[in-house]
Amino acid sequence: MSYAADVLNAAHLELHGGGDAELRRPFDPTAHDLDASFRLTRFADLKGRGCKVPQEVLSKLVSALQQDYSAQDQEPQFLNVAIPRIGIGLDCAVIPLRHGGLCLVQTTDFFYPIVDDPYMMGKIACANVLSDLYAMGVTDCDNMLMLLAVSTKMTEKERDVVIPLIMRGFKDSALEAGTTVTGGQSVVNPWCTIGGVASTICQPNEYIVPDNAVVGDVLVLTKPLGTQVAVNAHQWIDQPERWNRIKLVVSEEDVRKAYHRAMNSMSRLNRVAARLMHKYNAHGATDITGFGLLGHAQTLAAHQKKDVSFVIHNLPVIAKMAAVAKACGNMFQLLQGHSAETSGGLLICLPREQAAAYCKDIEKQEGYQAWIIGIVEKGNKTARIIDKPRVIEVPAKD
Amino acid sequence: MSYAADVLNAAHLELHGGGDAELRRPFDPTAHDLDASFRLTRFADLKGRGCKVPQEVLSKLVSALQQDYSAQDQEPQFLNVAIPRIGIGLDCAVIPLRHGGLCLVQTTDFFYPIVDDPYMMGKIACANVLSDLYAMGVTDCDNMLMLLAVSTKMTEKERDVVIPLIMRGFKDSALEAGTTVTGGQSVVNPWCTIGGVASTICQPNEYIVPDNAVVGDVLVLTKPLGTQVAVNAHQWIDQPERWNRIKLVVSEEDVRKAYHRAMNSMSRLNRVAARLMHKYNAHGATDITGFGLLGHAQTLAAHQKKDVSFVIHNLPVIAKMAAVAKACGNMFQLLQGHSAETSGGLLICLPREQAAAYCKDIEKQEGYQAWIIGIVEKGNKTARIIDKPRVIEVPAKD
Repeated sequence: MSYAADVLNAAHLELHGGGDAELRRPFDPTAHDLDASFRLTRFADLKGRGCKVPQEVLSKLVSALQQDYSAQDQEPQFLNVAIPRIGIGLDCAVIPLRHGGLCLVQTTDFFYPIVDDPYMMGKIACANVLSDLYAMGVTDCDNMLMLLAVSTKMTEKERDVVIPLIMRGFKDSALEAGTTVTGGQSVVNPWCTIGGVASTICQPNEYIVPDNAVVGDVLVLTKPLGTQVAVNAHQWIDQPERWNRIKLVVSEEDVRKAYHRAMNSMSRLNRVAARLMHKYNAHGATDITGFGLLGHAQTLAAHQKKDVSFVIHNLPVIAKMAAVAKACGNMFQLLQGHSAETSGGLLICLPREQAAAYCKDIEKQEGYQAWIIGIVEKGNKTARIIDKPRVIEVPAKD
Repeated sequence: MSYAADVLNAAHLELHGGGDAELRRPFDPTAHDLDASFRLTRFADLKGRGCKVPQEVLSKLVSALQQDYSAQDQEPQFLNVAIPRIGIGLDCAVIPLRHGGLCLVQTTDFFYPIVDDPYMMGKIACANVLSDLYAMGVTDCDNMLMLLAVSTKMTEKERDVVIPLIMRGFKDSALEAGTTVTGGQSVVNPWCTIGGVASTICQPNEYIVPDNAVVGDVLVLTKPLGTQVAVNAHQWIDQPERWNRIKLVVSEEDVRKAYHRAMNSMSRLNRVAARLMHKYNAHGATDITGFGLLGHAQTLAAHQKKDVSFVIHNLPVIAKMAAVAKACGNMFQLLQGHSAETSGGLLICLPREQAAAYCKDIEKQEGYQAWIIGIVEKGNKTARIIDKPRVIEVPAKD
């Protein structure tokens, strides 16, 4: 009991200034009586890969199954419902309910530690799950569950320090989103895993089906790219052979700033972005996560009703991370749009005449920029990045 | 495409007779062009431990956090709602909604492969998640999500064979339950992991808050114990040093029968059991999973409104598994009530005069026995097993 209180006091200390990641001190393991070398990110050995099953593998597996299903069940069991049933491929499932025109909008996500601060990791995981709801224009979440796997390689001490901090971060983020965490599941696993489930029960006018893009729309992105590059570069500070590959293009100070900008960005909710989608008549959106900007843009394009394509001209990237990505050769594929992001921004199709106002409004409300990064053309439901996209360097806030 | 068709044909072959596990042939890796030595259960190295974080560790972590929360937030944010908010500790979360007296009943669960047949593993995982809803007397699930982690140690070939089979099993079980799987998350992980999320939106009279046990009630169990013992014993057939410990008390044939009985039992839905809870005025229930019969009985007892205790006299166990457990010393703690179960039965508090009719009705509808295993006495909200409980040997069906 008093021990738990100690852990939480330490968490409070780090929260100097009240939760704003910019003001947050770096996580200090020794303040929690852990070894100075403790790194949460070492409890998952992804070796630079993203944690997701590759998109093409997944769609092959899933589509084989879906086809088989439709061939097997002759009854059109999805066709008798008034509200369209949205399934695999988009950010959320939308399920019509038995009760008065309501539907369930639901999503789940989980992944491995990407930052070393357990409290921030909890916040990021929560923001990342909620982001799928926000991408559908849903602004209120009715319930969250937490999914947690504790690493088998953690000592009992490490576990007792880290898990309450992760849980607290997750819950604080849920609180900020106006929702609560009422349950979940905890298991042991070689890799530490964290994620959750977010559910909303709402009227059909509360969500925006992301299939209404028209020629002439523009594409807005609400957070900078480069989170994966930043968290990797930050880990390399301790690894001379890695660091040598990038030290000609960045200083340690640059990387620390980028890392804090990334943590800040990943833990920021896309909730205001979702609210403004209604105000400015968005035609659809997706959130940028494991499959990178282009991967998610392509999925969104493929789901459009009209014959449109997305063309991306600008890439807003956390300052210096484009240079780091280039110095690493093809490893991240950041400028090709394939670098995984965690809890990235919303990519939104907006009427051209509304987009600037959208960006101005979000900046006024939150103090963060959004960018017009591309256009919607006539086309065959694909997405691409132009040959030499303009990289917009997004500085860390001071 | 044609490759996927092959995989699914193989699945059909094994489904000779139409999905009944008793008739199902053992999974043959070579029929899927995999090495004969392929074993799904080897993709998680639990070494006989349960996969859950120990119950006492978990409650310590969670309760520390809960206490801190209530101390910190002075506002009684849970108190203004008409429907009781049920949180961590019980099988489901029940969340009152903004819409006309409805609530969201939701649960999640995931774990590691415990049987070698991927299709059956998918079915078991689905039945196991749904079981939490059924324990609350909820009989209709509105939506499911699938949570899947593909082992990093699987070859591409193994992955392409196993994942569609798991998915199909999961979906078939969902279909049997009258619900659908509309999304989920897939990641790579050292251990293969499978689970899901089940959600229902319902009126308060559709679920049974499990806190109404009264002195004089009896305890009914709807599936036999011993699933963990059976799946372990089955793995030991291939491991002479392990097999030698139990071969004096069981034959290989006994173990194979017990394993099939266990698979059958784990993949069976607790849906009829849930429906009959309403008919026979159940006072509350829980489902038996990772913390064993006594662990879950204790949690259920602790949540009662009245000053009652549960006393368990009878232990229905899959035939021969009590002997196997004894031959393994204290490893499983089966007769002490601590052996983990997967997708176990419901433990239900029923009025004494209704219990026999409940058991008769479930047997009539499903062809499976249920047992009166204990009584509700006056007490301090605890549960115990008597000193020398009667072991009921539950044979495999022919």
